[in-house]
Amino acid sequence: MSSSWGTNIELSIFGESHGQAIGIVIGNLPAGIQLDMVDIRRQMKRRAPGLNIMSTPRKEKDEVQIMSGLMGDVTTGAPLCAMIYNSDQHSKDYSLLQECMRPGHSDYPAYIKYKGFNDVRGGGHFSGRITAPIVFAGSVAKQILKQKGIVIGAHIQSIKDVYDDSFGVDISSQDIENMLQQQYPTLNSHVFEKMQATIEEARINCDSVGGMIECAILNVPAGIGNPFFDSIESHLSPLLFSIPAVKSVSFGLGEKITELYGHEANDCYYYDDEKVKTKTNHNGGITGGISNGMPIIFRVGIKPTPSISQVQQTVNIKTKENTELEIIGRHDPCIVPRAVVVVESMAALGILDMMKDI
Amino acid sequence: MSSSWGTNIELSIFGESHGQAIGIVIGNLPAGIQLDMVDIRRQMKRRAPGLNIMSTPRKEKDEVQIMSGLMGDVTTGAPLCAMIYNSDQHSKDYSLLQECMRPGHSDYPAYIKYKGFNDVRGGGHFSGRITAPIVFAGSVAKQILKQKGIVIGAHIQSIKDVYDDSFGVDISSQDIENMLQQQYPTLNSHVFEKMQATIEEARINCDSVGGMIECAILNVPAGIGNPFFDSIESHLSPLLFSIPAVKSVSFGLGEKITELYGHEANDCYYYDDEKVKTKTNHNGGITGGISNGMPIIFRVGIKPTPSISQVQQTVNIKTKENTELEIIGRHDPCIVPRAVVVVESMAALGILDMMKDI
Amino acid sequence: MSSSWGTNIELSIFGESHGQAIGIVIGNLPAGIQLDMVDIRRQMKRRAPGLNIMSTPRKEKDEVQIMSGLMGDVTTGAPLCAMIYNSDQHSKDYSLLQECMRPGHSDYPAYIKYKGFNDVRGGGHFSGRITAPIVFAGSVAKQILKQKGIVIGAHIQSIKDVYDDSFGVDISSQDIENMLQQQYPTLNSHVFEKMQATIEEARINCDSVGGMIECAILNVPAGIGNPFFDSIESHLSPLLFSIPAVKSVSFGLGEKITELYGHEANDCYYYDDEKVKTKTNHNGGITGGISNGMPIIFRVGIKPTPSISQVQQTVNIKTKENTELEIIGRHDPCIVPRAVVVVESMAALGILDMMKDI
Amino acid sequence: MSSSWGTNIELSIFGESHGQAIGIVIGNLPAGIQLDMVDIRRQMKRRAPGLNIMSTPRKEKDEVQIMSGLMGDVTTGAPLCAMIYNSDQHSKDYSLLQECMRPGHSDYPAYIKYKGFNDVRGGGHFSGRITAPIVFAGSVAKQILKQKGIVIGAHIQSIKDVYDDSFGVDISSQDIENMLQQQYPTLNSHVFEKMQATIEEARINCDSVGGMIECAILNVPAGIGNPFFDSIESHLSPLLFSIPAVKSVSFGLGEKITELYGHEANDCYYYDDEKVKTKTNHNGGITGGISNGMPIIFRVGIKPTPSISQVQQTVNIKTKENTELEIIGRHDPCIVPRAVVVVESMAALGILDMMKDI
Repeated sequence: MSSSWGTNIELSIFGESHGQAIGIVIGNLPAGIQLDMVDIRRQMKRRAPGLNIMSTPRKEKDEVQIMSGLMGDVTTGAPLCAMIYNSDQHSKDYSLLQECMRPGHSDYPAYIKYKGFNDVRGGGHFSGRITAPIVFAGSVAKQILKQKGIVIGAHIQSIKDVYDDSFGVDISSQDIENMLQQQYPTLNSHVFEKMQATIEEARINCDSVGGMIECAILNVPAGIGNPFFDSIESHLSPLLFSIPAVKSVSFGLGEKITELYGHEANDCYYYDDEKVKTKTNHNGGITGGISNGMPIIFRVGIKPTPSISQVQQTVNIKTKENTELEIIGRHDPCIVPRAVVVVESMAALGILDMMKDI
Repeated sequence: MSSSWGTNIELSIFGESHGQAIGIVIGNLPAGIQLDMVDIRRQMKRRAPGLNIMSTPRKEKDEVQIMSGLMGDVTTGAPLCAMIYNSDQHSKDYSLLQECMRPGHSDYPAYIKYKGFNDVRGGGHFSGRITAPIVFAGSVAKQILKQKGIVIGAHIQSIKDVYDDSFGVDISSQDIENMLQQQYPTLNSHVFEKMQATIEEARINCDSVGGMIECAILNVPAGIGNPFFDSIESHLSPLLFSIPAVKSVSFGLGEKITELYGHEANDCYYYDDEKVKTKTNHNGGITGGISNGMPIIFRVGIKPTPSISQVQQTVNIKTKENTELEIIGRHDPCIVPRAVVVVESMAALGILDMMKDI
Repeated sequence: MSSSWGTNIELSIFGESHGQAIGIVIGNLPAGIQLDMVDIRRQMKRRAPGLNIMSTPRKEKDEVQIMSGLMGDVTTGAPLCAMIYNSDQHSKDYSLLQECMRPGHSDYPAYIKYKGFNDVRGGGHFSGRITAPIVFAGSVAKQILKQKGIVIGAHIQSIKDVYDDSFGVDISSQDIENMLQQQYPTLNSHVFEKMQATIEEARINCDSVGGMIECAILNVPAGIGNPFFDSIESHLSPLLFSIPAVKSVSFGLGEKITELYGHEANDCYYYDDEKVKTKTNHNGGITGGISNGMPIIFRVGIKPTPSISQVQQTVNIKTKENTELEIIGRHDPCIVPRAVVVVESMAALGILDMMKDI
Repeated sequence: MSSSWGTNIELSIFGESHGQAIGIVIGNLPAGIQLDMVDIRRQMKRRAPGLNIMSTPRKEKDEVQIMSGLMGDVTTGAPLCAMIYNSDQHSKDYSLLQECMRPGHSDYPAYIKYKGFNDVRGGGHFSGRITAPIVFAGSVAKQILKQKGIVIGAHIQSIKDVYDDSFGVDISSQDIENMLQQQYPTLNSHVFEKMQATIEEARINCDSVGGMIECAILNVPAGIGNPFFDSIESHLSPLLFSIPAVKSVSFGLGEKITELYGHEANDCYYYDDEKVKTKTNHNGGITGGISNGMPIIFRVGIKPTPSISQVQQTVNIKTKENTELEIIGRHDPCIVPRAVVVVESMAALGILDMMKDI
């Protein structure tokens, strides 16, 4: 699968940054789900560009049009197609990008793969803009999961070397809701100021920075996930690595668990009022690939935006010569803040797909 | 998919630690491939238990029997089924494990999922033993890829807090071959001694340790990988997370890339004798989800083996009471050394599956 | 899979008869294919309603809008999304159909499946109208296949009990092209007149008729198709059964081959100028599930349109009583003529999906 | 998919007629199902060769060995692997078959596909023998479905031009059970004698005959099946076409429905004691691709066994010359009687796969 994904639900994504429209088809949704369109618009806005100085000045309203699958605001069970027309494409000259390969971007490998026929304008189908339909689909998934009590929330865990706290073993749905009240969610309410300063410094230097996002999924019942090739980690990771610029995915303590002893890493069980819990949650709610009822915790690492305005060394694929490239354009000095809701959306789609009885 | 995996090739895995046999079916292999059975046995031995004091004393010859798909040693194009009979199962009493859930293991989530019907003996289908057929399949894949010039090798990057070096930007096939001459491959030839001491200390303390494995895939041509849901990262990560105890997967610099500036993280292109290369390889040979011709580099984090002989706190699922558990048995104090060839195997299977024209 | 389909290409279909739009996403198409838009419009017109007295008077221009995946008329390799806005929906009252289940339609099973939330207007997602995007996708597939020399054409083999001839063992690409010059292709040029009279008689009686369509796929190279679950028959049949009202699919002589002796049914091989051919083609170009280089021949049976204006016995699902139903509306007395191009399209999509190297 | 199949369950099949063993892996079965091994052996025997003069004299006990997935006779939820060792392979010389392509067989297309590396002994992976594991898997599926009240039974509908009756609109589970008491089930208890005479005549003439099998699936609840690409017809047909020699699949009246008027073809609904039924069942229990609660009825056409001992015209692929071929060996003059249980098995696997909540 490439543009499509899913076992119980079926996603199919399409669109280019500067094409007619971008969108998504979501097949196999349950019928009779009343969608909260106000909430969906709010989620879309969390990702939308142009909100402030940290993001690209491109103005896109990202208004979603439903083409099928809804009667009123209620799902019919037929494929739900949502489209977003592109409105603020700049008609600038992209011929340079067809020759000079931007470092860190898809340009060169895509040129080889598509023999030069791919749409390079604004990154084409590789643009981060393609995550807008993911946020739509993820918002639908979150609403369906919420009816089962499952709550999802993410926070910025780091911008470059500025780090937020990590989720503790005790997180409540209320904690997540409170956290998501912030435009740019963090656990330590003072840390975003420093993060913002780091981003601003990069912007002024025509540079960019990356960071990490940590996400929690609460109230997934124990027993979700499958051996051998379909653990929760195996099911979620390809979705998370589909987000442009994600280079690492880890669950629970992630790489840090490799420095513990077994007696530390094992999360001991106990009964809390007839419910099985663990005293720590180093495994992020998943053992043997299956949920154990504790919060599912994972973390993704996002590299600095490859689009920077500094002069860079590269190759000209037409002349077959080394060259210098300076890209003038609209760039995000850091996409991490806008990616928070994308990470939550992928988590929601992945978990919904694993819940056979929804 | 759960017990099966693949788009071009088709894997189906089966078996329990203490059942009759474990094995794998590999469908859709190209016909006419001459398999090197000596090499396959060598690869199997890299994973096999009982080799030394670091691994479980369980004796299993892990001899592979081919049930179908070969004439002589040449593939016929029909599904290749390989089986390994279990020989050294201990018939000890496993009733305790049906009640007392081992921390860090699949026991509790599997109990819920399978309503108590799962085979708990030796971890059943969740046992690390199930990776033996993966090594068989991966060895076949490596041999097919090698005919295309693609070479795969992994090394132990860390045991607990003892770290080996990382792959540099220039790695040759010869480097990989040299590295793989070591029984326990490392880049820094002196570091394994310290690693071994760390493992031995854990063993003596009835404890366990984890670590990390770094893997390189050389000579994958540029242009392999797909948008949106099928980047190389998305294609390899579920395979890697299917290896029991893997909790993190990252490509290139992984989490470390989040601390760089964009101008550092971008790997600049240059022509090296008509071939496009990058001066650094922070992106691990993948940009936009597609191979750029540089070595594909990734890293997995493996948690400490959950099987330890210390007394642990847990629950008894039958009596619904908190309890203590002491597991006497055959355990690996560290599975990382045996997992190196498993990681290589998963990499080979993933890349083979993405190469449409093999 | 439900709304999506495909192994090499990836289809995702959406839309309801009276919704905003219907459409399709085609993923994984080769890049650099110049599409002939004039031909695509011509193919769309072969299926479009309102052309004559035999088809529903609903007027739909079925104009396709490309949302993504093309630059000029050349494929970029990114998902190709095509949409057709619905324009001539009648806003009549559909409340009757939410209670009284039309015999022969999806109404009752869909009511149970979707708990009454499905869109019943004009058949909703079950409408034959949803085949319009299939014709678009199939036309693209036919153009790609044509570059490989593969030619596809179908004819009306029967309307009720009026039968056309069947394809002979020798069919040339030119034969197919000539046949497709007719608006309603038949092999016997006189038979359509009788077919038309049969349809007209049904129309006058507020009744409907069905029929059969036979299709030929020329120049598929020998060796396409797979064991065990993916024979050409297994690969094409689900596509063909996805066409609303198709109740039978057969290859070669179909059911008639069951009345032959083995020595008759076996198509004997001979060399015709270094090319292996068979003297008869009773197996329809497929033996062992794999193409043998002869024309692939198959036939589908289409039941009479269930929409008829006669009074019918049925149940009222709300009152739980038996009742009578009279449907006044726009119906095709026979959909077989419009389905010819749909059958060709499905054949093209199925074969394209099996050609790994396109 | 090729050697594997399934959405909820996961099948993977392997083996060649003269290889070490044939078998199947069934993934994702529910845990806690007590299998009736006596019944499974009885079902295996219905397909087994060597029972009488009508079938090949090859003696195979077809004894199934369970390699994984069972504890006692109860499913664990882990993949169930069943193997059948080949025992009565004749070590005769097969070199002729590597040059002279048997008409009607997979030989020539497989030679092209596998470049001559395929195992031709006894048909290799294309042998009808590979359906033995299907009968095992299908028997397991039938037992699981029976717990939900779903009953499956098939009868020989024709041998050459000798026809049995067809299922009526009223079939009870008891009718099916009674019918299956016969070794070779027919509805008209006198017709098998004539069928047998037809087969015997073919055998004496070194020829073969085919026939049709009709199958009923009772008590599938209304609402099973999906649009657009996953109707019940689309889901079952590839399984049925995977049975070697099947050339046609039809539902309900099949091709005969194309000769009816709409008012005849539509199955009118009525309430029978609060249960919705139809007065006729021309649509075979499926409208709009979804079950309507009536018996699901389908029919497959099986061509005459291509293996006949008569001299046949063919090509020698090595010498590139026309030649004559006379195959001496063990052949079934008619495989239809042995295929009845295979058809039932495929039906059971297909329906089980569509029942999400089992």
